[in-house]
Amino acid sequence: MAVSEIGTDHVWKMWLPIIINMLMSIVAYVVTVKLIPKLKEMFIKANLFGIDMSKSTSEKVPEAMGVVSGCMFLITMFLFIPIPFTTFLFEGQFPHNEFVELISALLSICCMLLLGFADDVLDLRWRHKLLCPTIASLPLLMVYFINFNSTTIIVPKPFREVLGFSVNLGILYYVYMGMLAVFCTNAINILAGVNGLEVGQSLIIALSISLFNLIELQSGQWKAHQFSLYFMLPYIATSFALLKHNWYPSKVFVGDTFCYLSGMTFAVVGILGHFSKTTLLFFMPQVFNFLYSIPQLFHLVPCPRHRLPKFNSKTDKLHISTTSFRYSEMNVGGKLFVNLFRVLRLIQWHEKNDYVLTNNFTLINLILLICGPLHEAKLTTVLMILQICCTCLAFLIRYPLAYLFYDT
Amino acid sequence: MAVSEIGTDHVWKMWLPIIINMLMSIVAYVVTVKLIPKLKEMFIKANLFGIDMSKSTSEKVPEAMGVVSGCMFLITMFLFIPIPFTTFLFEGQFPHNEFVELISALLSICCMLLLGFADDVLDLRWRHKLLCPTIASLPLLMVYFINFNSTTIIVPKPFREVLGFSVNLGILYYVYMGMLAVFCTNAINILAGVNGLEVGQSLIIALSISLFNLIELQSGQWKAHQFSLYFMLPYIATSFALLKHNWYPSKVFVGDTFCYLSGMTFAVVGILGHFSKTTLLFFMPQVFNFLYSIPQLFHLVPCPRHRLPKFNSKTDKLHISTTSFRYSEMNVGGKLFVNLFRVLRLIQWHEKNDYVLTNNFTLINLILLICGPLHEAKLTTVLMILQICCTCLAFLIRYPLAYLFYDT
Repeated sequence: MAVSEIGTDHVWKMWLPIIINMLMSIVAYVVTVKLIPKLKEMFIKANLFGIDMSKSTSEKVPEAMGVVSGCMFLITMFLFIPIPFTTFLFEGQFPHNEFVELISALLSICCMLLLGFADDVLDLRWRHKLLCPTIASLPLLMVYFINFNSTTIIVPKPFREVLGFSVNLGILYYVYMGMLAVFCTNAINILAGVNGLEVGQSLIIALSISLFNLIELQSGQWKAHQFSLYFMLPYIATSFALLKHNWYPSKVFVGDTFCYLSGMTFAVVGILGHFSKTTLLFFMPQVFNFLYSIPQLFHLVPCPRHRLPKFNSKTDKLHISTTSFRYSEMNVGGKLFVNLFRVLRLIQWHEKNDYVLTNNFTLINLILLICGPLHEAKLTTVLMILQICCTCLAFLIRYPLAYLFYDT
Repeated sequence: MAVSEIGTDHVWKMWLPIIINMLMSIVAYVVTVKLIPKLKEMFIKANLFGIDMSKSTSEKVPEAMGVVSGCMFLITMFLFIPIPFTTFLFEGQFPHNEFVELISALLSICCMLLLGFADDVLDLRWRHKLLCPTIASLPLLMVYFINFNSTTIIVPKPFREVLGFSVNLGILYYVYMGMLAVFCTNAINILAGVNGLEVGQSLIIALSISLFNLIELQSGQWKAHQFSLYFMLPYIATSFALLKHNWYPSKVFVGDTFCYLSGMTFAVVGILGHFSKTTLLFFMPQVFNFLYSIPQLFHLVPCPRHRLPKFNSKTDKLHISTTSFRYSEMNVGGKLFVNLFRVLRLIQWHEKNDYVLTNNFTLINLILLICGPLHEAKLTTVLMILQICCTCLAFLIRYPLAYLFYDT
């Protein structure tokens, strides 16, 4: 009898806040979906608009609309703050450490939303794009330091003979966490440029994290995963509302604001939930796109201002965009990369009198290279399917394969 | 011997973080003062600029520059977060409640900076201006509820026979605190429009609060005042850097961003430091300006789009701006107010065939009515001196006079 009562109490404490959060998220979805079209004119009037380069029309499409879904996400979270702590208030023993985690996570996300919006309005430079997430993650790392300060990682079985059972990374672990925030925000930002892609990929990552959380709610670490769900559900709701207006043909663009907000939200739950490695597993297409882009990002290979696919108005399809260079004038690093990619058949290669013409090194162009020219909506769909496949692979690695490397 | 050692330890714990905070603020001042001119072009390019209506030239002056000083303020605070808690980390007994106060205060300020900047860029409506501070103060009120939840106020002596020694305001106290945030942000925002005025008045309020904190550091409540100083010093440093560029003739405008940021910062330290009534005492000119503006704010008297003083390019001086109305067509509320103001000699009154011409109901116009036309820099200086006099009056009320109403 007593055991069953404890069980009921546990289920109650685990699920009630999640259910309330879910109901609040549904309201947030409804409000956001209605709010976005109302604010379109306001954004265009404020000079925050872009022209869709993959359309025949040159209509003004409002930019940086991610700030609307982001604010709605934050407001939902602000209103949710008291919910998980109501029972504790009357029971005494208030869990200050859990409370400060929630507040500092919101601080990091709010800070990132501000910086993302400032970037959209002011067009910040690249160094700011790296500096901003680092600054915004400071409160988070501080809380991690105070609440956990666990910087020891378990070594995978094959390496234990050399490194031992565990390694204390110390300050390096904080550098890793800071870089995680920088990576997450920018990785989503560089896999972009096709209607619905930024929101679509972020939503699949968020859904993957939520699924993982739901599975892990049964484990001993359920608190961390409950915490993560508090953020994921309103995030999914508000982003879904944004996607409704951002899907092909886009009525609004989401801006860097949305990419920053998304990346930080994923980094926050990964760090405070102690599943940052699993979070990274859900970023496989983004990691690939980043590695594939390196030669152009670091200017080893010429990088045009836009690497978006080219729109053909006659066929209404997107084609690969290209870059050209003189192979003989390329430095060693550049030669190494292009030859590697050529051998791996990751790039198109047309050579004539020492001039080489290849596609731009982005995942989007690679998909077009493999599938041939595609309609924009279809291209986004293919990329979404790829993201879902990678999530399946991630779960395969996280569950059956992890047993090979770690003890259960 | 033992007593003296405890004394030294106490002084050390009180002053060391403040001194470090001061040094960081000096660095923040230097960086901000150099950063602002560098970002001017970026703001103008982003369509964030205004034309100074009180100048002969029509140069583009960058707007919303408060976001730069605001971000520098936040970055300084982020870097400062660990400092007050370093000793506790090694001693054990980490003060989670103090830590969560710091983080939630930063969350409210950061949220307000985001909303202020969004307001500058998107030109939000009046209802948003009231809604935004309310939302931004939610985390703060939540922390107040968890850490203190003291909603009992001591009744001043003359009312004790009726009300008793103390009254528990309950939820009304939270409404009061929420409204304090709304009032502080908007009160600064409506006493504006002359070069250097927004920053100047905010700086004097901040300096007044700091002085009050320094005095109260000697009291039993020193922790709350130390906490307030952590915010005030970097705020003063970054705002001072902004004033250097915003003073007559303004090279940059500060925007609603700065007013929002300032109001929220004052509300935050007032609420969490338990001296919100004293904070309000430092807002005397703003309170007067608000009460004086009521007939125009609520459209009982016609309110032109801008109520700024009029610039006379020949004399290089500012003159009062006016509004006119038919007295007979005015409703009862309007008649009541204008007659009251007329009797108190707070407005100019020219009547002709039922048409009445008066100055606009702002403190700035009242000063010009009393002093006659003034040069812009001199007008700001007069307003600054008035603010300083009100601070002196506030200290008079807070210290000698308070003994009449409260036991010491």
